[in-house]
Amino acid sequence: MDEQAIYRELRSLGAATVYEAQGAKGAIDSGIKPIDKASRLVGPALTVDTRPADNLMLHYALLKARPGDVLVVDAKGFVEAGPWGDVLTAAAMKRGIAGLVIHGAVRDANAIESMGFPVFCRGLSIKGTGKVHPGKVNVPVCIGDVVIRPGDIIVGDRDGVVVVSADEVSTVLESARAREAKEEAFRLAIEQGASTAELLGLIPTLEALHLR
Amino acid sequence: MDEQAIYRELRSLGAATVYEAQGAKGAIDSGIKPIDKASRLVGPALTVDTRPADNLMLHYALLKARPGDVLVVDAKGFVEAGPWGDVLTAAAMKRGIAGLVIHGAVRDANAIESMGFPVFCRGLSIKGTGKVHPGKVNVPVCIGDVVIRPGDIIVGDRDGVVVVSADEVSTVLESARAREAKEEAFRLAIEQGASTAELLGLIPTLEALHLR
Amino acid sequence: MDEQAIYRELRSLGAATVYEAQGAKGAIDSGIKPIDKASRLVGPALTVDTRPADNLMLHYALLKARPGDVLVVDAKGFVEAGPWGDVLTAAAMKRGIAGLVIHGAVRDANAIESMGFPVFCRGLSIKGTGKVHPGKVNVPVCIGDVVIRPGDIIVGDRDGVVVVSADEVSTVLESARAREAKEEAFRLAIEQGASTAELLGLIPTLEALHLR
Amino acid sequence: MDEQAIYRELRSLGAATVYEAQGAKGAIDSGIKPIDKASRLVGPALTVDTRPADNLMLHYALLKARPGDVLVVDAKGFVEAGPWGDVLTAAAMKRGIAGLVIHGAVRDANAIESMGFPVFCRGLSIKGTGKVHPGKVNVPVCIGDVVIRPGDIIVGDRDGVVVVSADEVSTVLESARAREAKEEAFRLAIEQGASTAELLGLIPTLEALHLR
Amino acid sequence: MDEQAIYRELRSLGAATVYEAQGAKGAIDSGIKPIDKASRLVGPALTVDTRPADNLMLHYALLKARPGDVLVVDAKGFVEAGPWGDVLTAAAMKRGIAGLVIHGAVRDANAIESMGFPVFCRGLSIKGTGKVHPGKVNVPVCIGDVVIRPGDIIVGDRDGVVVVSADEVSTVLESARAREAKEEAFRLAIEQGASTAELLGLIPTLEALHLR
Amino acid sequence: MDEQAIYRELRSLGAATVYEAQGAKGAIDSGIKPIDKASRLVGPALTVDTRPADNLMLHYALLKARPGDVLVVDAKGFVEAGPWGDVLTAAAMKRGIAGLVIHGAVRDANAIESMGFPVFCRGLSIKGTGKVHPGKVNVPVCIGDVVIRPGDIIVGDRDGVVVVSADEVSTVLESARAREAKEEAFRLAIEQGASTAELLGLIPTLEALHLR
Repeated sequence: MDEQAIYRELRSLGAATVYEAQGAKGAIDSGIKPIDKASRLVGPALTVDTRPADNLMLHYALLKARPGDVLVVDAKGFVEAGPWGDVLTAAAMKRGIAGLVIHGAVRDANAIESMGFPVFCRGLSIKGTGKVHPGKVNVPVCIGDVVIRPGDIIVGDRDGVVVVSADEVSTVLESARAREAKEEAFRLAIEQGASTAELLGLIPTLEALHLR
Repeated sequence: MDEQAIYRELRSLGAATVYEAQGAKGAIDSGIKPIDKASRLVGPALTVDTRPADNLMLHYALLKARPGDVLVVDAKGFVEAGPWGDVLTAAAMKRGIAGLVIHGAVRDANAIESMGFPVFCRGLSIKGTGKVHPGKVNVPVCIGDVVIRPGDIIVGDRDGVVVVSADEVSTVLESARAREAKEEAFRLAIEQGASTAELLGLIPTLEALHLR
Repeated sequence: MDEQAIYRELRSLGAATVYEAQGAKGAIDSGIKPIDKASRLVGPALTVDTRPADNLMLHYALLKARPGDVLVVDAKGFVEAGPWGDVLTAAAMKRGIAGLVIHGAVRDANAIESMGFPVFCRGLSIKGTGKVHPGKVNVPVCIGDVVIRPGDIIVGDRDGVVVVSADEVSTVLESARAREAKEEAFRLAIEQGASTAELLGLIPTLEALHLR
Repeated sequence: MDEQAIYRELRSLGAATVYEAQGAKGAIDSGIKPIDKASRLVGPALTVDTRPADNLMLHYALLKARPGDVLVVDAKGFVEAGPWGDVLTAAAMKRGIAGLVIHGAVRDANAIESMGFPVFCRGLSIKGTGKVHPGKVNVPVCIGDVVIRPGDIIVGDRDGVVVVSADEVSTVLESARAREAKEEAFRLAIEQGASTAELLGLIPTLEALHLR
Repeated sequence: MDEQAIYRELRSLGAATVYEAQGAKGAIDSGIKPIDKASRLVGPALTVDTRPADNLMLHYALLKARPGDVLVVDAKGFVEAGPWGDVLTAAAMKRGIAGLVIHGAVRDANAIESMGFPVFCRGLSIKGTGKVHPGKVNVPVCIGDVVIRPGDIIVGDRDGVVVVSADEVSTVLESARAREAKEEAFRLAIEQGASTAELLGLIPTLEALHLR
Repeated sequence: MDEQAIYRELRSLGAATVYEAQGAKGAIDSGIKPIDKASRLVGPALTVDTRPADNLMLHYALLKARPGDVLVVDAKGFVEAGPWGDVLTAAAMKRGIAGLVIHGAVRDANAIESMGFPVFCRGLSIKGTGKVHPGKVNVPVCIGDVVIRPGDIIVGDRDGVVVVSADEVSTVLESARAREAKEEAFRLAIEQGASTAELLGLIPTLEALHLR
């Protein structure tokens, strides 16, 4: 199965299912969300470690990015600067970059949304940035209590963002499919009147707690 | 007047009007909001007291809920776990549950929104939950500086959520209608050129403060 | 060029461009955002200094406002009260007021959005306010680390709000046009394959940092 | 056993023990803390419901307070005003008031600390308050997800504040003593080498989870 | 009266009294506090406008500072970097600088405290800073909703920080003394049994509200 | 050089110096601080991954800990529960555990402080915890944007906490000594009148920016 097919399927399964499927790990904290709630993003991470309020390294990262990459930028959580906007979005789309996850804020939200480029961030800010600070590209970064290494697979949607280790993608996909199938079976059983407590086998636990 | 008619009218009047009509009390804090800004929710509370990051009691509450109930869940304000998602939503809708208010986060926001189930929460999280912690159902809970007792009537919309004591519903409804009528009269007078200061009788106050 | 034409052009240029065009100053912090993400607001400030949870001065300000004014209200950042709602919106629109920026919260968000009145705020709250506290109108106020003096020009959109000194508006507009033209040229060059690092002249900086 | 003796013993047992002793309920959220970490406060609540940034009702409450009362003030969580300072502290001490718990901020922290008056608050602010807003004294208030009714017993120390229903004080005291005795026995056993897992009977749980 | 005598007296009066004495204005928000609760700081501001996580401008400001100056640094509120530590403190003390107010964080808190240098900040961080970003010295800065111009007088203590316009210092001092004298009289009257409601003339207000 | 000597020296150098010495990496965010500002903590991490509001795994970790270990507990940042208190402290001290770093809150702060056990946490809470949730011991955890692996060396003091990879400790120590020596030389030069700008070689940068 080729990468693109895997990514398409992960995109369709969604972040919550992938998170559970890989053993409830790899979720970025709940403060990073897409500016367009319909956004769905999947691809390998090109990581960027930069200071807050400076975007030199973002311009540099665009020179290094390959089509399909997801830029994952550790801007240190600072939300009073918008180091990414519509011009960078245009340049990123031209290079075929899949989307942006930034531990910080962006500007030009409406333009970005209408261009259809998935951006996951902590906020929107019009405040400016310098273009002088050195930083690093393709080193492990740590955002929202999760490590993201270059090449890790990013899966994001309205619910949040999860990071999958590149060498676990096939296993995780299989497990996610199984989980999705199980949930689909649950939905059918629920439609026919089953309770979630029965489906999940929680009745013994409830009885042990004298909850009946 | 039957309950359903009362609920329909409270839904149409909205949370802010109901809050004022009952003497400016019973409003949950501003951090709990609907995931769909068009949501409107009214119904009697089935309360749930649970620990953060565990949803055993949510599954239990579904066994106890009656059609029309609003689940009101004190998950201790923790937003880094999503103890409610699309499967629980499907089960809740199958039972005729009216909606969910949770002092915590949920997942599967887009699915929930498309299913048309009103969910009021503090955030969205893909992070998982256990299914082992005991808790309580139908005890008073305290969320956002408001007490909610089992059977209290919940009224929620984009502006927020207000709690009405079950035995005050008729009085509150009457008062809310009167308030709405007065505001409607205000709108007409404003359309004809009146100022809000005149309509609310604030001119003497302003004059006493030498504000003219 | 008349004021209205200037305002139309600033509205179209947007807050981020105007902020940069005036030398990266005057941006209110990122916590104040429009309730309708499509809102665009431009006009001279009528400033209001009021205590939290009291709207006497808002009613007073409406008596003083002129068509086209933007109400800029320092309500001290308190988000657990909604001193502005649909009735005040109707009165403000009747007087031709252009919009509201409030360091605090409002209520009746859906009604305000459907009336098409631009409101920029920190949150939504149904909680009530008194109508007794004195305050001041048309004095300098300080919100989100920016001073706003009466008559300053407010420019707001989804990305945020920026304040332009009245006597700098012409210069800022010119500079904003130049910036927009430059960005348009960038977009064309990007379309033809140029990198942002080249366009912004960052190659020497990157080389000096051994980033190539 | 007289009230004063009960209060002295509750003071010595401390907030955490009392909280557990009454069934893990009644704790105000962790954001309200003493300005002096050595403070210990016990007494019946005189509740005050006031608007933020106005202290008329605090002056009124002093007229109503009896020796030994604890003022419990719902100032709506607003921390950018300091409605209580050294003059009010002097007046409160003159009347024999036991201390203050405020859902808001105070000023004159060093003076208050040196006067030895226990104050539990959310912050320190020099910003001023009005003296015009009506409010209520001796009504139930809801702070930090806890209801406090007039006469409820407040127990506070560095760890936090817990509220005990007046009619449960004797039972809670007895239970707190038992808990303290048990913990004392634990400390002795620990000194002699016992593990907390053994003392609390957690070995079977750990074994069931294959944690050995 | 010479400047030093004025500063000594303002230091002794404290931030809350000075704030009230100048008409309840000029207070920085409650989030900036001294690292040593015994700190008292008074002096004219040398302002610094810098980016977050870069301290080039702090080193530059030391070259420009005169004995007695208070460094007032707008580091954009970012608390995940400590651009000031013990070496800068030693250099500042050598130049006779009076203290530091920073809209950001510092490091080496214990060393700074033991050196006796007053530092007011938003937090403590060990994270590092660059030394490359341009900025400005002696321009107006806006911190915590207050403008500070070069030469404005800073008064800070445990309760917070207030800014006095240089040309209003004499008037404010006089007014602060009067206020302090009045409060002293209040304290005496309270000692003799007067209520604060009487002393502040609040009885008519309370009666008008039927509060007696 | 034996481990204990290394730890003693790291303790004396402090968190900020160690952070810089290892290349400005490994610092936990600024929200985790010691409850006693005089605390200094150094030792190898025994990591614990647990759910919020449950301390089963803390009791388990005590069974596994060796003398000198630092417990590093990922309690998911939840501050409305205190899963660690004086009994656990007594048990930990009995086993020779060096201290605790917890992504969450604790209780019994005064007792812990007087026992002299270093605890670094996000807050204080009296609220209770369950003892039922499975978790993991000695797996990598991610707290405050830093990964901590079992055996990593923790260095904490009032300024914050930094994590050193076990296999880099010798190099980091050497580098930290060099840094400390350099800072000591700076202090001497400063005492003799040198500026920090000169000492750090910033004059060319300032001149290039026309700052002189």
